[in-house]
Amino acid sequence: MNKLKVVTIGGGSSYSPELIEGFIKRNDTLPIDELWLVDIEEGKGKLEIIGNLARRMIKKANADIKVFTTLDRREALKDADFVTTQFRVGQLDAREHDELIPLKYRVIGQETNGPGGMFKALRTIPVIMDIIEDCKELCPDAWIISFTNPAGLNAEAVFRYSGWKKFIGLCNSPIVIKHRIAKLLNLDVEELRIDFAGLNHMVFGLHVYYKGDEITKEVISKLGEYNENLSFSERFETIPYTKEFLNTLNCIPSPYLRYYFVKQQMYEHAFEEASKGGSRAQVVKEVEKNLFEKYADVNLDVKPKEIELRGGAHYSDAACNLINSIYNNLCDIQIVNTLNNGACSSFRDDEVVEISCVITKDGPKPITMGRLPIMVEGLCRQIKSYEIMSAEGAMNGNYSTILSALTINPLVQDETVAAAIIDEMLEVNKNYLSKFSS
Amino acid sequence: MNKLKVVTIGGGSSYSPELIEGFIKRNDTLPIDELWLVDIEEGKGKLEIIGNLARRMIKKANADIKVFTTLDRREALKDADFVTTQFRVGQLDAREHDELIPLKYRVIGQETNGPGGMFKALRTIPVIMDIIEDCKELCPDAWIISFTNPAGLNAEAVFRYSGWKKFIGLCNSPIVIKHRIAKLLNLDVEELRIDFAGLNHMVFGLHVYYKGDEITKEVISKLGEYNENLSFSERFETIPYTKEFLNTLNCIPSPYLRYYFVKQQMYEHAFEEASKGGSRAQVVKEVEKNLFEKYADVNLDVKPKEIELRGGAHYSDAACNLINSIYNNLCDIQIVNTLNNGACSSFRDDEVVEISCVITKDGPKPITMGRLPIMVEGLCRQIKSYEIMSAEGAMNGNYSTILSALTINPLVQDETVAAAIIDEMLEVNKNYLSKFSS
Amino acid sequence: MNKLKVVTIGGGSSYSPELIEGFIKRNDTLPIDELWLVDIEEGKGKLEIIGNLARRMIKKANADIKVFTTLDRREALKDADFVTTQFRVGQLDAREHDELIPLKYRVIGQETNGPGGMFKALRTIPVIMDIIEDCKELCPDAWIISFTNPAGLNAEAVFRYSGWKKFIGLCNSPIVIKHRIAKLLNLDVEELRIDFAGLNHMVFGLHVYYKGDEITKEVISKLGEYNENLSFSERFETIPYTKEFLNTLNCIPSPYLRYYFVKQQMYEHAFEEASKGGSRAQVVKEVEKNLFEKYADVNLDVKPKEIELRGGAHYSDAACNLINSIYNNLCDIQIVNTLNNGACSSFRDDEVVEISCVITKDGPKPITMGRLPIMVEGLCRQIKSYEIMSAEGAMNGNYSTILSALTINPLVQDETVAAAIIDEMLEVNKNYLSKFSS
Amino acid sequence: MNKLKVVTIGGGSSYSPELIEGFIKRNDTLPIDELWLVDIEEGKGKLEIIGNLARRMIKKANADIKVFTTLDRREALKDADFVTTQFRVGQLDAREHDELIPLKYRVIGQETNGPGGMFKALRTIPVIMDIIEDCKELCPDAWIISFTNPAGLNAEAVFRYSGWKKFIGLCNSPIVIKHRIAKLLNLDVEELRIDFAGLNHMVFGLHVYYKGDEITKEVISKLGEYNENLSFSERFETIPYTKEFLNTLNCIPSPYLRYYFVKQQMYEHAFEEASKGGSRAQVVKEVEKNLFEKYADVNLDVKPKEIELRGGAHYSDAACNLINSIYNNLCDIQIVNTLNNGACSSFRDDEVVEISCVITKDGPKPITMGRLPIMVEGLCRQIKSYEIMSAEGAMNGNYSTILSALTINPLVQDETVAAAIIDEMLEVNKNYLSKFSS
Repeated sequence: MNKLKVVTIGGGSSYSPELIEGFIKRNDTLPIDELWLVDIEEGKGKLEIIGNLARRMIKKANADIKVFTTLDRREALKDADFVTTQFRVGQLDAREHDELIPLKYRVIGQETNGPGGMFKALRTIPVIMDIIEDCKELCPDAWIISFTNPAGLNAEAVFRYSGWKKFIGLCNSPIVIKHRIAKLLNLDVEELRIDFAGLNHMVFGLHVYYKGDEITKEVISKLGEYNENLSFSERFETIPYTKEFLNTLNCIPSPYLRYYFVKQQMYEHAFEEASKGGSRAQVVKEVEKNLFEKYADVNLDVKPKEIELRGGAHYSDAACNLINSIYNNLCDIQIVNTLNNGACSSFRDDEVVEISCVITKDGPKPITMGRLPIMVEGLCRQIKSYEIMSAEGAMNGNYSTILSALTINPLVQDETVAAAIIDEMLEVNKNYLSKFSS
Repeated sequence: MNKLKVVTIGGGSSYSPELIEGFIKRNDTLPIDELWLVDIEEGKGKLEIIGNLARRMIKKANADIKVFTTLDRREALKDADFVTTQFRVGQLDAREHDELIPLKYRVIGQETNGPGGMFKALRTIPVIMDIIEDCKELCPDAWIISFTNPAGLNAEAVFRYSGWKKFIGLCNSPIVIKHRIAKLLNLDVEELRIDFAGLNHMVFGLHVYYKGDEITKEVISKLGEYNENLSFSERFETIPYTKEFLNTLNCIPSPYLRYYFVKQQMYEHAFEEASKGGSRAQVVKEVEKNLFEKYADVNLDVKPKEIELRGGAHYSDAACNLINSIYNNLCDIQIVNTLNNGACSSFRDDEVVEISCVITKDGPKPITMGRLPIMVEGLCRQIKSYEIMSAEGAMNGNYSTILSALTINPLVQDETVAAAIIDEMLEVNKNYLSKFSS
Repeated sequence: MNKLKVVTIGGGSSYSPELIEGFIKRNDTLPIDELWLVDIEEGKGKLEIIGNLARRMIKKANADIKVFTTLDRREALKDADFVTTQFRVGQLDAREHDELIPLKYRVIGQETNGPGGMFKALRTIPVIMDIIEDCKELCPDAWIISFTNPAGLNAEAVFRYSGWKKFIGLCNSPIVIKHRIAKLLNLDVEELRIDFAGLNHMVFGLHVYYKGDEITKEVISKLGEYNENLSFSERFETIPYTKEFLNTLNCIPSPYLRYYFVKQQMYEHAFEEASKGGSRAQVVKEVEKNLFEKYADVNLDVKPKEIELRGGAHYSDAACNLINSIYNNLCDIQIVNTLNNGACSSFRDDEVVEISCVITKDGPKPITMGRLPIMVEGLCRQIKSYEIMSAEGAMNGNYSTILSALTINPLVQDETVAAAIIDEMLEVNKNYLSKFSS
Repeated sequence: MNKLKVVTIGGGSSYSPELIEGFIKRNDTLPIDELWLVDIEEGKGKLEIIGNLARRMIKKANADIKVFTTLDRREALKDADFVTTQFRVGQLDAREHDELIPLKYRVIGQETNGPGGMFKALRTIPVIMDIIEDCKELCPDAWIISFTNPAGLNAEAVFRYSGWKKFIGLCNSPIVIKHRIAKLLNLDVEELRIDFAGLNHMVFGLHVYYKGDEITKEVISKLGEYNENLSFSERFETIPYTKEFLNTLNCIPSPYLRYYFVKQQMYEHAFEEASKGGSRAQVVKEVEKNLFEKYADVNLDVKPKEIELRGGAHYSDAACNLINSIYNNLCDIQIVNTLNNGACSSFRDDEVVEISCVITKDGPKPITMGRLPIMVEGLCRQIKSYEIMSAEGAMNGNYSTILSALTINPLVQDETVAAAIIDEMLEVNKNYLSKFSS
């Protein structure tokens, strides 16, 4: 059995203990020899805390994984087998801007699909491109597994512009949906299979099977009932639709659909929370502060329970299962962001989709899913157009391109508003967006 | 030369004198023998005014067209060669609701693409279906040319549900765009050719040619400049985009694009106008009152100049040219709503598009146009999905269907808001929407 | 664990002992309670021989499967879980005509893809349709697994005309190709995975993986070398192409490709063999005679070795693995004939393809394969057109339809020749083709 | 009105007088100032004969066109508006090889679609590429109208490899079909319109209209009847199918379809003719000899009647009408070889098709035609694959590529036979195919 070298870019992230626990649990089939945690100067302190926690966790588990921490990405990437990315350019301060500035213009910020997400992508894509250039030189056979949001848009840029093939964009949301459905219907999550197709944060569960039998209708019906008994604020985090809507849609929507089809209420909710200082970035900052205090405790040698407050549930499962299936050529089914190649007829062959795939050593092979429901096909196509244009803008640094991209974003739909948001966002992001400075 | 029988359903419309003038002008090549103007009981007075004006106009022009007025549609349809429709179910009162009620919910009403348009379609489609059933029996070889709005949505319903093939949805907006461009660049409109593709009220001039030479870039540039020198309120009726936006779009958008991509301002404008009693329906009511006073004048024997205030410029050209080209198998190029059949790769074969066609005796034959610009492809697909679902709702009378259709409308995007609008609209439209009453 | 009822139509086939052995071997995971072997009056003797052999085999293996033999198909189908078909209408005499008559007209007979195959389909499809009608009534939830040739054409007819969804056409040729490659490169067949796409008997191995690593180039190169050292007659049964051809093709062709691209030599070979009394039907008759003598031996209680001479290697594996994976929702990858649904972009959604699928309890889910190599895409499309028209002919009994179908068959390509073959074939098949008699 | 410069490459062709007559007739609307006839050294004598005849014809007609003859192609191309090509590399000797060598191997030679056509393409494409390189430099705005066969394959190569957009492949066969139908049904050819789609020499008249009314069924029925009364040898030049076949096909096939679907008889006919010294090349040589004697007569100042024996009827109409419509932006409908761009859904966007187009100053705009009949779709796709691979072979000079291309040609279908033909053809064509010499 070969020994594996895994590199995690953004290793100082508060998510890392979950990932490390995942590697430890799979140590039997996934013989990781070296785990390199990489971060930048500003994250040095956190990186060391995580590195030490990782070593304590591994020791406690009696696993045989060597942990390295470094600020030198190239040293880490040399001969890597898997590279995972989970960094956040501009950290939580940038996220705060992403979420709050658009609200001033009556637009939901949304750090993935909205204007916030576009700026996150503009900051992130150049860094991913740099990493890939390093990989071409230092580890040309490595798989890059990217959790960095917006996962779909970033993957679109990579497949369109980098020439690198072994890249997978990964998001926990399909797994989260699966767990919610299991909980809602009181089912064993292991026996649940969902045919997913769509885009990152805009994925649809077209068919749900339990022990192989289709239960889609029952799930839709249960979702509809469940929502009936809750107030909007109670259910807005999940899938806040009426029975009528879900029945016509006839599949399980991503929770993010609410930003598009319960838009006024979502805006009002976001505005209200922000007014109370409760933007997601603000909340997360507090959580992270507490988490790192925990992580630094030299007596801690397991993943602490409090990590659940951080969000990102099942990220570790998603990532470790994917790496494990590739390494062992398991041919099991997982949901990832990859080239469509005809799998979902609502998208073109060379567009990135989030879709159920057979995971092989040669990468993900999408399962044919047909067409998305017409209710959401056009919306998804418009989001894909927005992603393609945003990716183009990230590469060419052209103001017109990002203005047009943001104008067509279904959360914006107004050129004047888009221009105002962009102007203010460019200003606060100027350290990360030198391409747009001239 | 055969003698032709033309039937106009909604003959009492204020537009009719324009149509009649068009027939008179083309009398040499279009030998109309009988023109039947049909209306309903409530429109009897106007119908008689129009009938008499028509007879005076024809007499004055020394044309040889017999004019009949009737409330008996079936009598009129017997052996017709062409049937034109220009009726408005619920008349201008219904339009007023269409425009004003959605505004209460922060949604643009818009009597074609917005919630207003959906209710106009719900009122109209059953009537068109009835007319077609009569035609199957009484004039199975007739062409039906429909100007009734929403022209694209109505045509979608007809092709999807009626089994009738010889149906064309017609709108003046491509001709209007052509005239505006001619005026803007000071060109001879006769020498201008524009490749149009898209949907009704969402059509795009992909290429503009003058005397055969492509001038698309010049037109885009001129449009951008023109807009620069106007305030938003001055330019909102046309194509209120910046140079940057138009350059990236790289084609000539329908003015209606402003509802989707200058949405906040359009909403504010509509809201302001409505507050001042200036909804389009309210304005038109006043215009119509004055027009019919004119029409009734027994000394009037030509189309009065004041008809221009009514809007609908070039409607007569669009209609008469189309009928003339079909009758004479002219094989010239006109823009109509017909089945896509592969002409624009952004739509499916069996979807209705508004597109440049060769007009033959066998009907319109679309010219291949490739793909819409990605900036608007998804939006157009979402509008098409909305149209398909609205058409389905008009046929099945199902509340869930229209709720879902309106929720996905890019002007609405909110299920709760959609439900509120629908509930109020169903109430005020109950006389016309018996299908939804149970 | 539920008890399963399996019904085999054409149970008196010489293949049956292989199938029975397959069920016995999988008894742990596939709890078959009742196995019903069905045949027709003419096959009664063979049916009893097979039934008794089956009982001896089961007893010897200590398995708990009850075997029933019957001529009453409806009795057998009642509440069946799986129905397999392996009958041959007209038996080997019909096959002899299928193979020999076309040769008179300088056309390869070929009992699957050629004129012989068309007549086999014309005889078979009506029987399959009858079986399905029975299933609709007696076992509406059963899966029908059909090995009856031509497997692709029959499946096309079923999906196009029967309304029955749970139907899978199955052929051993993908497994045979896999075994040949394993043998050629001396590899463990269990570690070999091939991405297959195409049509039955015209399937292509687009990518070959060993332990997850792609080895397509090596396989192509080895195949080319292997052929170089053999005379045509030695290699004609496999894949008799030059290195140049295989390199340009860039995938692994089905052996049946030789009928289309080494056509003159295949014709000459078939003609020569037939002259010596060696048509495949003639050979098989002799083999079968001997086999049934063996089967009748009351001391025989295992599958006899001589069955290998019959051909159809790995049929049992194909069938039993498929049934096992459906029953246990294994989600492994197998190659079957099912609706394309976008999986291979060379075919339309509603056409049947032979393709790598994930096998679930809900049936096969094709893996996306992109486009066939252009070298063979057109040929495959023409074969599909031939299949569609032949299926139509089998349903409508129209002489023009089958004349046109056979004319466009790439082995025929001549209307006069097609007519001559059809006329003679209709005569000898008249007992089975009453639809064409009037 | 601008003065036009037209250049004809291969000006010494026996077809030229027809072209010149066409220009003279259209002199009013097509103000050609200079006509340059270009040829190569070997054609110098013929070129001068044609040049002088042209001058006499123009003088006689009182037209104002200056005629230049030259062997210096670059001098001629300078500032050209239209370039027509009608040269034949290797002249009629090469054609004789094209037709006769394949017959030795039981394969129809066929100077367009068969092995003969492939070698004609291999000789021609490099010359066209050279001409285009000159045009890029000397007349970058010129339209190139190419009559050189195989017109479709050459155009495929140009669009795929040259980067030149203003290229149109032209063939007289759609016009010939139109005239035959007019004659067969005794109709005014001017009032006939046929919707054509397909490939060069494999085009289909999907719908036939007379004065705008569809008469497709009548035409098919008449064709079927007509054939019934003729022996095969009498009808083989046209469309030798039975009623049954034509009814199922349900459109008007190109006469060349007979090579694919009456293949055995076509082969026998070709073989017989060749045995009698009657290959088409041999016949044409004799005709040409006599024609040039006529042309040289200083008293001849009109196109001689004997030119009709040469074949190529209506070539002049096709060419002059096309040039006239482009120059005058007529927007009439003509059938040309151009990029598909979605017009016929049986082909991909970037493949060249022969299709009804609106002819504008900006070039041909295909009319949407939907899908070819399934009976011939696969065949056409296979021919297109053969064309694409042959074009690739013409560019890369790779033996494997042309071996594979010829093997998949529906007239060949045998690798061993393809190799034998290619080897012999490469030998006799070695002066023209230096790319393949190494």
